[in-house]
Amino acid sequence: MAAESKSRVGGLRLWRNARLATMAEGAAGLGVVEHGAIAARDGRIVYAGPESGMPAALAQGADTIDCEGRWITPGLIDCHTHLVHAGNRANEFEMRLAGATYEEVARAGGGIVSSVKSLRAASEGDLVAQSLPRLDALIAEGVTTVEVKSGYGLDLENEKKSLRAARQLGEQRPVTIRTTFLGAHALPPEAMGDKDAFIDLVAKEILPAVAAERLADAVDGFCEGIAFSPEQMARVFDAAKVAGLPVKLHADQLSNLHGAELAAHYGALSADHLEYTDEAGAVAMAKVGTVATILPGAYYYIRETKKPPIGLFRQHGVRMAVATDNNPGTSPLTSLLLTMNMAATLFGLTVDECLAGVTREAARALGLLGQTGTLEAGKSADLAIWNIERPAELVYRMGFNPLHARIWRGQ
Amino acid sequence: MAAESKSRVGGLRLWRNARLATMAEGAAGLGVVEHGAIAARDGRIVYAGPESGMPAALAQGADTIDCEGRWITPGLIDCHTHLVHAGNRANEFEMRLAGATYEEVARAGGGIVSSVKSLRAASEGDLVAQSLPRLDALIAEGVTTVEVKSGYGLDLENEKKSLRAARQLGEQRPVTIRTTFLGAHALPPEAMGDKDAFIDLVAKEILPAVAAERLADAVDGFCEGIAFSPEQMARVFDAAKVAGLPVKLHADQLSNLHGAELAAHYGALSADHLEYTDEAGAVAMAKVGTVATILPGAYYYIRETKKPPIGLFRQHGVRMAVATDNNPGTSPLTSLLLTMNMAATLFGLTVDECLAGVTREAARALGLLGQTGTLEAGKSADLAIWNIERPAELVYRMGFNPLHARIWRGQ
Ligand SMILES: [Zn+2]
Ligand SMILES: [Zn+2]
Repeated sequence: MAAESKSRVGGLRLWRNARLATMAEGAAGLGVVEHGAIAARDGRIVYAGPESGMPAALAQGADTIDCEGRWITPGLIDCHTHLVHAGNRANEFEMRLAGATYEEVARAGGGIVSSVKSLRAASEGDLVAQSLPRLDALIAEGVTTVEVKSGYGLDLENEKKSLRAARQLGEQRPVTIRTTFLGAHALPPEAMGDKDAFIDLVAKEILPAVAAERLADAVDGFCEGIAFSPEQMARVFDAAKVAGLPVKLHADQLSNLHGAELAAHYGALSADHLEYTDEAGAVAMAKVGTVATILPGAYYYIRETKKPPIGLFRQHGVRMAVATDNNPGTSPLTSLLLTMNMAATLFGLTVDECLAGVTREAARALGLLGQTGTLEAGKSADLAIWNIERPAELVYRMGFNPLHARIWRGQ
Repeated sequence: MAAESKSRVGGLRLWRNARLATMAEGAAGLGVVEHGAIAARDGRIVYAGPESGMPAALAQGADTIDCEGRWITPGLIDCHTHLVHAGNRANEFEMRLAGATYEEVARAGGGIVSSVKSLRAASEGDLVAQSLPRLDALIAEGVTTVEVKSGYGLDLENEKKSLRAARQLGEQRPVTIRTTFLGAHALPPEAMGDKDAFIDLVAKEILPAVAAERLADAVDGFCEGIAFSPEQMARVFDAAKVAGLPVKLHADQLSNLHGAELAAHYGALSADHLEYTDEAGAVAMAKVGTVATILPGAYYYIRETKKPPIGLFRQHGVRMAVATDNNPGTSPLTSLLLTMNMAATLFGLTVDECLAGVTREAARALGLLGQTGTLEAGKSADLAIWNIERPAELVYRMGFNPLHARIWRGQ
C-alpha cells in the first residue's frame, strides 16, 4: 500500500496556483491561463488549464507544488547551437579590437580553421567537459531542449566524435539534446580548396556513415560565398533525403544566394540567419512551413547592419524561432533570455514573438512540436517557473535570470 | 597560543599560484604578473606581485589558497547605477514593441513618472527587497563596489528613503556601496512644469538636508533638453560645493548641451554617457581629469546610433570607465561582463580599456582610487578570481559567468 502510494506520488505531479503561458497553437497571444494548473504523469502533461477545470481525480495522491502565483512557460528551447566546440576565439576578438584586419587574424591561425584544429585535438571526453559549462548556463535559464551541431570535425571520425559528445551531454544533464550533422560547414585544410570534392566526401561517405550510426537527428549546411554554393548544398540535401533525415540550412546570412528558397524546396525544418532573404524566399518558406530561425547574437557580434526581413515573414505567415547560435567565432552567447532581448531590441520582434520563438516555434524548427514547446496534454512536462509579474520581463531585462525552477520530463 | 595563531590566520590570507591582472597605474596593458601572489592582512592588500618576490614572512601562518593558475583581477566596480528603484517598466517595453508611440506610452502612465510613482509608494524595506536581486546579479559576477543613485524620489523624504535603502544594501551584502544624490534627475508632477523652482528646492533644501545627514557621497544631475539646462545644473553644483560633495553629470546623452565642459568646469569626478560630446568637451575633461563613464547598455537599449567619441577620449588622454547604468527605463542591465562586451562590440573599446573601465577607472570615477580598483599594496583586498585562460574571455563572451570566487575586504 505504501509502495503503491509512493509510486503514484512519483508518477503524478501537480503544479497549482500558477499563471500559465501555454503558448498553445491558435490561442491568442501567449495562451495565458490565470489561476492555472498543470498535472503530469510519468513525465507527460495530462492537464494544463484553469485550476477550476481540472478533473478532481488528478489531484488525488499527486505530489503537489503550490506555485504561489508564479508564471509557468514551456521549458525553453535553443534550436540552433554549435555548443560542442573546443577552445575559444577570445584571442581573435582581442586582436580585432586592437585593430587587426581579418587577414592578420587569419595569418595568426584564426578563423574557423582554428576551431577545427582545436576540436580535432580534443578527445571526446575533453569536448564534453569543455561544453558542459555552456550547457549549464543555458539550463540555468530554464532551457530543457538544446540542438547541437557538428561541423568543426569535417572528417568522418571527428564529426562522429562531435555528435557522440553532444549525445553524451544529454546523458550527463537532465535535458533533451537534438543533434544535427553539419559536415558542409567549412572546407577543411586537407581539402586543398576543392569544395566539390569535399562535398562529395560529405554526401557520399560521411553523411551516410553518420546516419547509419544514428548519430544525427537532422542535416544542416552553410550556404554562402565563403562556404558552399546552393548546388553543392543540394547534393548534401539529396543525400540526407536518401538517409531519411530532415534538413536545415544556414541561409542568406551575408548575401542572398536564395538559400531560403533552396531550404523550402527541400521542405527544410528551418532556414536560419536570413538577413539577406528576399520576398521570394519568405513566400517559399511560408508555402512549405519552413521556420525562420532568427539569430540576433551573430548579427550583433559581427556588427552586421542588414536585418532579417521580419515584416515579410509576418506578412507571409512564416513562423519565427529565436536561438543563440552559440559558437566560438561569431556568437559566443549562452543566454537565451538575452537572445530574446536582442531579437526585440535589434529586430523589433514583439514579446509574444520572442517567447513563441524560444518555445513553440523552436520546437517546430526541430520537428519536435508533437513532444514539447507548449503546455498541452500529451507533451513532455518540460516547464520553466519564473519569479516575474508579467512575461514581458523575460524579454526586457539584460543579464538577469528570474528562473524559480525548471522541470524536465516532470522532474 | 592557539588563539593567537587563529587570529593570525584570520588576519593574514594568501592567494598563490595565480596570474594577476593588477591593473596598476602606469603598468603596461593589464599589469600582468604570471606566477603571482597576493597577501592580505585585515582586509588590505600587503603584497601583490610575483610569488618569488614575496617576503617570506607573509607566508608564515597565513590562510593560504592555491589558485591553481587562475586569473585574479581587482573586484569589479559598477560606477553608475540607478539600482534602487521600485517596479519595472517591462510593460512600456512591450507596448513600444507592439507599435505604441512614446506619446501613447506616456498617456498610459509610462516614462520616468511611473518609476517616481512606484518608488514613492514603496517602503524603504520594499525598496531594499526589490533591489537586492539586482545587486546579487552584479555580485555573482565578481562586483565588489557599486555606486547607487537616488533620483526617483524627487522630494526630500523619498530621496532620503532611496539613499538609506542604498546604504542598507551595503549592510546586507558584502559589497561597498557609494551613494549619489540625483535630485536633479527629472521634474516631479507636483512641480507643475516649473524647472527653476524645482532646482531651487533641490539646491537650497533637499541637497543640504541630504548632505547634513551624510546620506550621499556625491551629487549628480541630468543635463539635457528633456531634463535640466547647464545653468540649472550649475546651481545644483554650486550647492554641492557648499556641502563639500564631489559632483558627476549625465551629460550630452541625447544632444550636445556642452555638459562635458560644465562637468569639467566643476572638476567633476566623471561625466557620463557623452554620446554627443565634442572635442572641446574631451579637452576640458582631460585637463582636469574628469573620467568619461561609457554606458553602452543605454545606447543599445534605446537604439541610439551616435556613439561617444572614443577616439577623441583616447587622443586627449581622457580616462574611460564602463558601467551598467542599471535603471528600469533605458538600461535594465545587471551584468557588468555583458556591459564590457557591449563597450567592445558597439564602441570598439579594447579588452584592456574595458577591463580598466570596470576596475581602476571606475574607482577613479568614484573618487575611490586610493582604496580599490587595482591589485596593489595598501588597497582593500577586493578580488575576483576567474576560470579563464586569458582576460579577453571576460569581454568576449555574452551571458556566461566564469567567476570562480569573489573576495571583498579579504573575505
Ligand atoms: Zn550556426
Ligand atoms: Zn544614469
